[in-house]
Amino acid sequence: MGVRIIDLTSMVSGPACTMLLADQGADVIKVEPKEGDLVRRMSDRGHGMSTGFISLNRGKRSIALDLKSDAGQQALADLIPTADVFVQNFRPGTIERMGFGEDRVRTLRDDIIYVSVSGFGAEGPYAHKRVYDPVIQALCGLADIQSDGATGQPKMVRTIIPDKTTALTAAQAVTAALFARERTGIGQHVRLAMLDAMVAYLWPEGLVGHTLVGKEVHGSRAQFAQDLVFETQNGYITVGAVSDIEWRGLCRATDRSEWLADERFKTASGRIKNAAARIELLQAVLRESSSEEWLRKFDEAGVPCAPILRREEVYTQKQVKVNDLMREFDHPVVGRVRQPRPAAHFDRTPEDIAGPAPGIGEHGREILESLGYSRERIAASLSAGV
Amino acid sequence: MGVRIIDLTSMVSGPACTMLLADQGADVIKVEPKEGDLVRRMSDRGHGMSTGFISLNRGKRSIALDLKSDAGQQALADLIPTADVFVQNFRPGTIERMGFGEDRVRTLRDDIIYVSVSGFGAEGPYAHKRVYDPVIQALCGLADIQSDGATGQPKMVRTIIPDKTTALTAAQAVTAALFARERTGIGQHVRLAMLDAMVAYLWPEGLVGHTLVGKEVHGSRAQFAQDLVFETQNGYITVGAVSDIEWRGLCRATDRSEWLADERFKTASGRIKNAAARIELLQAVLRESSSEEWLRKFDEAGVPCAPILRREEVYTQKQVKVNDLMREFDHPVVGRVRQPRPAAHFDRTPEDIAGPAPGIGEHGREILESLGYSRERIAASLSAGV
Repeated sequence: MGVRIIDLTSMVSGPACTMLLADQGADVIKVEPKEGDLVRRMSDRGHGMSTGFISLNRGKRSIALDLKSDAGQQALADLIPTADVFVQNFRPGTIERMGFGEDRVRTLRDDIIYVSVSGFGAEGPYAHKRVYDPVIQALCGLADIQSDGATGQPKMVRTIIPDKTTALTAAQAVTAALFARERTGIGQHVRLAMLDAMVAYLWPEGLVGHTLVGKEVHGSRAQFAQDLVFETQNGYITVGAVSDIEWRGLCRATDRSEWLADERFKTASGRIKNAAARIELLQAVLRESSSEEWLRKFDEAGVPCAPILRREEVYTQKQVKVNDLMREFDHPVVGRVRQPRPAAHFDRTPEDIAGPAPGIGEHGREILESLGYSRERIAASLSAGV
Repeated sequence: MGVRIIDLTSMVSGPACTMLLADQGADVIKVEPKEGDLVRRMSDRGHGMSTGFISLNRGKRSIALDLKSDAGQQALADLIPTADVFVQNFRPGTIERMGFGEDRVRTLRDDIIYVSVSGFGAEGPYAHKRVYDPVIQALCGLADIQSDGATGQPKMVRTIIPDKTTALTAAQAVTAALFARERTGIGQHVRLAMLDAMVAYLWPEGLVGHTLVGKEVHGSRAQFAQDLVFETQNGYITVGAVSDIEWRGLCRATDRSEWLADERFKTASGRIKNAAARIELLQAVLRESSSEEWLRKFDEAGVPCAPILRREEVYTQKQVKVNDLMREFDHPVVGRVRQPRPAAHFDRTPEDIAGPAPGIGEHGREILESLGYSRERIAASLSAGV
């Protein structure tokens, strides 16, 4: 779409945001220090490029600049006028000390969209804290929501929900700012804190018990999502019924017409209120037959259900094949790579993987050449050679 | 931003998408059947409007149309030419049977952005299944990722991650399609399946062990997110160290210089590989003092850490106040309401709560009047009266 993004972010929340935009056709220039994004070296298996890095940075170009040197500073300053978006996720105050705060960047390109992603925002008690995903899980209520039902001990969700959710929220916001700029000609500053992204994300459902001021509902009573994992004779499935028609189907499939007559379960809100009793009754019945048999019966009765897949079954399942979700391609450094395409399918504009993840500074020379730099000047600017 | 969205979605994934766009200034017209969105009646506390509905539909206008009647069909057909976006999340084939498939809608407004959100896409073994959040958690690997460490039994995440993630992915895609239309004049069809949204979301980190074709890493070894909940003398905290500097800080704060010398923990990838041993050692030490003391020591040493907050502490914490995240306003039906503002802050275009959630058909009359309908015709079109 002719959008260029200068991406100074590292780790997950920033890179996952700009990767989605690269998949949709943006030219994302990843500006790295000479040692590269820290994620390059996490879970490394010998080729200096972790699978996490590969999956967060595909389709970007990399330039390695030492922003403490004059030549590195100048190269970034020369890049900015060619860009539509400037994204950074340093801790508050850092980018200003580096000489690329909003005011400076806007003197170089006045209608640029300047994006600041942070853990907590620019001020407040946590603003200057180091932040990783579990810190946000702890502070946004997610670890409480996941508490052990029996002991009440908080639990983490074992994947990095706050990082990913912040990335999607940021990608939507950047896109909205690009749209607004098309209509107004004005580029703005978009600020996003991970904590804010997670509270907004969790509120409907996860924190919704606190919606009515003065009538707050505390603890697990405030929640309608249940742990709908059921053990069958030979494995695990999920099954649930929300609407009346689904509940009738569930009673039919399990041959339990007495549940239909049960006052506790007659309405959707009654079934939510009495979820614990309902789940216990259902679990006892489901142990009597195999997963396959239950899934067949629930499907026939129009009741939402599914087998619980292990990770290696996820991308090999038939539905994923029909959806043409997975891509394989040869990565120059690590070999054959598997990635999901971006989820949303556009029938007129690009939405596919733009290319492999780059080596540190892999595209530095071509990027600087496009700015008209001479060979000598390129050598001076780049902190990691080609 | 002068964008009108006709929203035929119900439940969560569609409504949370259009709510974000309403918060950013879109005029969202929620088209409901006369009994209203099912979420209105979930967790109802006597006023016909659940807190879930309030938190998923704020700032929209509602019109109740019986799309099985000629007058209802005509009213929707008359609305479409005024709209930029048409969103629906019925099961595949339903919207076509209702007479508002893409072809028909495009004859009414040729550059409209037509959005189809579904559980699984239009084809494949699950395409016609009823879908709720746990079904997607089961099929996308999230329930496996969350498996109990000791027993291997899969667990659900106890909040509706797939619904919310699909909503954000859809909101970004709609916004991208609006941006593309500004540049090309062409409105397109955006298709999004919840299953695809979740696989794409989870892949970096949650499913990343399957990136290298032929060198897949199975099960929990494939993951670097750990359950970093630690018990102290008087509660629970989270603490973690990724970079070398943070690890040194952690060893200093806990006064365990012997860990610094431990070969297993010398590099970031070593610390990930030996996470179980590291966590066990750390847990033993943390039980010796209070949460407050550990948080103070870790903060001083620059180690990411936080108290684990209960839900009711989330929105009252100081950082949330400083971020000006929460809004309170009087809702005409349910009284005083608390909601988080949208997370991303734009300094030039709107990003705040546009108003309360509507009653069923609350704005039907004003919407039809704006189309030039007479009083008699309005009465005939609306299936739920004002």
